Amino acid sequence: MTKIPVSVLGLGRMGRALAGALIAAGHPTTVWNRTPSRAADLDGAVVAPDVATAVAASPLVIVCVLDHAAVEDVLAAAGPLSDAVTVVNLTTSTPSQTRALARRVPSYLDGGIMAIPSLIATPAAVILYSGSPEAFAAHRPVLEVLGGAQHLGADPGLASLYDLALLAAMYGMFGGFLHAAALVRSTGRPVAEFTSALLLPWLSAMLTAVPGMAEQVDSGDYAARDASLAMQAGTDTITEVSREQGVSAELYAPMRALMVRAVAEGRGGDDLASVVELLVRPTVGGAG
Amino acid sequence: MTKIPVSVLGLGRMGRALAGALIAAGHPTTVWNRTPSRAADLDGAVVAPDVATAVAASPLVIVCVLDHAAVEDVLAAAGPLSDAVTVVNLTTSTPSQTRALARRVPSYLDGGIMAIPSLIATPAAVILYSGSPEAFAAHRPVLEVLGGAQHLGADPGLASLYDLALLAAMYGMFGGFLHAAALVRSTGRPVAEFTSALLLPWLSAMLTAVPGMAEQVDSGDYAARDASLAMQAGTDTITEVSREQGVSAELYAPMRALMVRAVAEGRGGDDLASVVELLVRPTVGGAG
Repeated sequence: MTKIPVSVLGLGRMGRALAGALIAAGHPTTVWNRTPSRAADLDGAVVAPDVATAVAASPLVIVCVLDHAAVEDVLAAAGPLSDAVTVVNLTTSTPSQTRALARRVPSYLDGGIMAIPSLIATPAAVILYSGSPEAFAAHRPVLEVLGGAQHLGADPGLASLYDLALLAAMYGMFGGFLHAAALVRSTGRPVAEFTSALLLPWLSAMLTAVPGMAEQVDSGDYAARDASLAMQAGTDTITEVSREQGVSAELYAPMRALMVRAVAEGRGGDDLASVVELLVRPTVGGAG
Repeated sequence: MTKIPVSVLGLGRMGRALAGALIAAGHPTTVWNRTPSRAADLDGAVVAPDVATAVAASPLVIVCVLDHAAVEDVLAAAGPLSDAVTVVNLTTSTPSQTRALARRVPSYLDGGIMAIPSLIATPAAVILYSGSPEAFAAHRPVLEVLGGAQHLGADPGLASLYDLALLAAMYGMFGGFLHAAALVRSTGRPVAEFTSALLLPWLSAMLTAVPGMAEQVDSGDYAARDASLAMQAGTDTITEVSREQGVSAELYAPMRALMVRAVAEGRGGDDLASVVELLVRPTVGGAG
């Protein structure tokens, strides 16, 4: 089977990983980068002198550049696009930026890469796509070369939004870990031992509670099963002990504040997931 | 083998679960609660009329009451304690409160229960202990009835500190999930589907990065392997998109602020774990 030609615009670490995977899978691969020298050691790629040449070379064009402004620059340089060219934007953009692009590009897919460059083309890489279902169906075999490809829907903004939601969840988990690590380190004990022996089993066990919380968010029924918000917000030992140990509780502070506000608003008999209702309203003063 | 008698002071939901597990395991069990009626349906327990009677009944006394002030009240009512009685305090206390207790109780163990009441006496329950190694060795068989028993060290404050560190990590993970859930719900999509199909595999994969972060905290070597703080702090798409979707980013805000501060302090080439160094210093204005 003939492999379709692909062009990759942008050769940062991620762009290089994508191009490398396509070359390895046998796709005729054309690359372009603002700084041409970055393409020099990509064996097997054709280096295009400009964006328009790169776009003309392939029916599938992957854009992976620094930010949305760079995407706009690249597409302006590409000139008018026909629906014979599918543009897959793997640059981090907002849903509204993505939707605006989709109105100008006849065949458009947006993607969110849930992996670091070294994991591209491994089973650990997941890439979320949204936008033209036809373009996704047509190019799915190529996209699967880069990592597990999931199409979320025709709204081109979905991939970007889900991508950012997953990142927000990741930063929450890492933030919780770093607070814990600071507390353990304040005792002079090794953090690595605490992490492997206690933290990983604990967080894995707590992760099993998350689907139940998701159901509560979907249903709006937050009636407490185990530890009500009133119980959880009753004392603030985490902050007190952090202070005693010389550790800032700033990463925990907004969760604590949300729990207290939720109780004050009559949600004391609810489970923790109930605080999601306080996140979807404008905060006084416009915070967040 | 004769099972040793145990007294349980405090019959809230957790105290009742502990007493129930001891009775089921065949230990002669004496219980006391400030409100005696709560002991009425605990078949197989002897109900003591006061704390002193309950303490005199057993060489092992478990205290599981509302808060540290209640622990102090209970121990004051117990009168002078000899080293023939081991007190196991399973009430949430701070390390300094715990150390103060240990100076007054000749044979003292502090414990942190990493489980909800319904999991007591199942393999999913872990209880962390610290304090007298001799008392732990002597009573370990009984303590294992309640859940997996881990002794952290002779410093009685350790169990409480590790308990709170694990809770801080849990709140971080749950907070990240709730931010993600609010974002997904803002699209009208079901949160449950997002959670099972994308979030759980993603967080499980990200959890594998945590031991590496722990090693960085222990070694102080944070040199970036994949995504440097400068890259991560370069844009703030999470906050921008949250605002567009009408979702508060307040749970993410302190992590964002830490990353920006870390870059400003010359940590731009470090990995995320580097921000732990900013948590262990007093913040200007005394926040946290």
